[in-house]
Amino acid sequence: MAQADDVLDLARRLIAAESVTPARGAVFDVMESMLAPLGFDVHRFVRGEGAEGGDEAPVENLFALREGPAGSRHFAFAGHLDVVPPGGGWASDAFEPEVRGDLLYGRGAVDMKGAIACMVAAAASVPQDAGTVSFIITGDEEGPALHGTRALIDYMGRAGVRPDLCLVGEPTSVNRLGDMMKIGRRGSVNIWIEVEGVQGHVAYPHLADNPITRLVAILAELAAIALDEGTDWFQPSNLEITDLSVGNRAHNVIPAHAEARISIRFNDRHSGASLAELVADVAEKHGGRAKPVISGEPFLTPPGEFSEIVAQAVEAETGITPEASTSGGTSDARFLRAVCPVIEFGLVNATMHKTDEAVAIADLATLSRIYTRIALAALTQHKTA
Amino acid sequence: MAQADDVLDLARRLIAAESVTPARGAVFDVMESMLAPLGFDVHRFVRGEGAEGGDEAPVENLFALREGPAGSRHFAFAGHLDVVPPGGGWASDAFEPEVRGDLLYGRGAVDMKGAIACMVAAAASVPQDAGTVSFIITGDEEGPALHGTRALIDYMGRAGVRPDLCLVGEPTSVNRLGDMMKIGRRGSVNIWIEVEGVQGHVAYPHLADNPITRLVAILAELAAIALDEGTDWFQPSNLEITDLSVGNRAHNVIPAHAEARISIRFNDRHSGASLAELVADVAEKHGGRAKPVISGEPFLTPPGEFSEIVAQAVEAETGITPEASTSGGTSDARFLRAVCPVIEFGLVNATMHKTDEAVAIADLATLSRIYTRIALAALTQHKTA
Ligand SMILES: [Zn+2]
Ligand SMILES: [Zn+2]
Repeated sequence: MAQADDVLDLARRLIAAESVTPARGAVFDVMESMLAPLGFDVHRFVRGEGAEGGDEAPVENLFALREGPAGSRHFAFAGHLDVVPPGGGWASDAFEPEVRGDLLYGRGAVDMKGAIACMVAAAASVPQDAGTVSFIITGDEEGPALHGTRALIDYMGRAGVRPDLCLVGEPTSVNRLGDMMKIGRRGSVNIWIEVEGVQGHVAYPHLADNPITRLVAILAELAAIALDEGTDWFQPSNLEITDLSVGNRAHNVIPAHAEARISIRFNDRHSGASLAELVADVAEKHGGRAKPVISGEPFLTPPGEFSEIVAQAVEAETGITPEASTSGGTSDARFLRAVCPVIEFGLVNATMHKTDEAVAIADLATLSRIYTRIALAALTQHKTA
Repeated sequence: MAQADDVLDLARRLIAAESVTPARGAVFDVMESMLAPLGFDVHRFVRGEGAEGGDEAPVENLFALREGPAGSRHFAFAGHLDVVPPGGGWASDAFEPEVRGDLLYGRGAVDMKGAIACMVAAAASVPQDAGTVSFIITGDEEGPALHGTRALIDYMGRAGVRPDLCLVGEPTSVNRLGDMMKIGRRGSVNIWIEVEGVQGHVAYPHLADNPITRLVAILAELAAIALDEGTDWFQPSNLEITDLSVGNRAHNVIPAHAEARISIRFNDRHSGASLAELVADVAEKHGGRAKPVISGEPFLTPPGEFSEIVAQAVEAETGITPEASTSGGTSDARFLRAVCPVIEFGLVNATMHKTDEAVAIADLATLSRIYTRIALAALTQHKTA
């Protein structure tokens, strides 16, 4: 395998299995049909018992393992088979993969069915006696992610399986395949701030207690805080106020309740809990309260052996050196970091989540060779993370 | 007239004519039937051509004039026949006036059909040769007030009629009839503040421009401004933020638009326009804009001959000296101030706008005597305002 035509065919088959998040069924059947012939032991399970459309809707997960010789190292490919909804305006059907010119079009072409096809092609090229290879694949990365990679990590823990290194196939390249890998991601926390006051008439403010005045004081104080100035590997942490809500239609009434929502993206100088406490302190000083929901802690795989393996593989196949970045949103690496060192590397992300998502066919072939080099090096050269 | 039973009967008849704001028809028929026999020339007209229920719905107004001898002074009674909706929970029907114990119950008993009954009784007691007496009565004081007293002032202007002094019958007494008159009211302006930004993802704040950050800066700056420290006759002006609105449900999105609404009650150190400009300057400094709607300018009839007339009349009938206040919300005095000096004096306001609105029957008799004394003094003693 690992011929351009083979990878293209794998990518087509995955894209053709419609899998708007949360995904179950058909796309996992396709994935299983690819891995089983390569000697992988495929375990699939569904988690979540809520109603369709809700945060607890059932999602499918797949863990596939091909064990190498006893004592061999274990390298894991991780990713997701669910995709964001196609939206309108496509030139061809989003779930009927179509080659036009040098490009393959379809929802998931770069995020990240194309990359998963490259992982499968790479696994086909890595001899079984080189070491243990696994696939950690969820059907819910684009959705609430409550029962996706988290459930896979639970499963691996109970099964006593622990990779030494893990590569996540998110589309990290920006302008050219190979120009960027992610060695970390910032953490993310959303915090709801609520202030209760005493309703009254604006003509009699001494009989009321305006919660908006106190909310504005809280927000002004939070907006003035410089969380940090960044680190060697991370941008400065950043706080944004993302919503304000009072809902008072009466012009002459001081309302009883005011609330705001903030979102903080933060580096490894902080934790979700430390920021929640900082915001709660400011809120409480002005008589408000804060309710945090931590989406993910920051992760960092500091530059070292693993990033060297990825960089050398990329350089060998493309001639360019990938930037080691920690920018952008969150990914499932925020969960996998608890298991082993994680790096994200994948296709060019220019069309991800957009109309006419497309991947360069040549990139599929190149990426499958890069993934092969990474797996082989991780299984053979790797000593410590 | 001016017997207790007569005033009570007048008040009952007015209350029985249901007149939830904006009022037309029946309650004005009752009013006309009371004034015509007393020698008043009654002019009624309807203004407003909008749909029922809207701000431009038609409302009725009444101007009644009884001219005294040539060159005599002109004293005006002003008020409104519309009432706020009754709401639920009344012990008796809100529009079936009922005496229980010493009280007369019904919507409008104190605000202000009871007081209008007292004005009619007073007019009956004032001889026609004492001077000119008029009634400036609207059916829209409790509503948008676009076509109420404003239209009456227009009418008087075109008719070349200008009172020398005007008494508005709002329920100004607090604990006992006579304990407070209003010699002024603060002005009122509502201002909508809007900030446009650039939408973006919270992970890429440098590609967005968060309008909430700027709105919070505007509001924090406005909240810190001390508009004034009050005057001899007015409380300090006061600014309240009454609403915040963004409506952004996406936790990871920096929204494109944020807005707030503020309400300022202000004394005669300011005008609606000067405050609108102050707020616009602060908003524009942070890239926002401000849209003011001025509800009313402040009015003040500084203590002097008119307030003395009212105070002496109250003292003679009740033995107590009314406090000269400028507190509370707005009234139609904000419009009448443009015509002549205005003072508000009326019944005890404890039950106004509430369930089981009621007036002490004894207060109706006392207020009709007070109004008689005020009218007589205004027509005879009055020299300058
Ligand atoms: Zn993805
Ligand atoms: Zn009133």
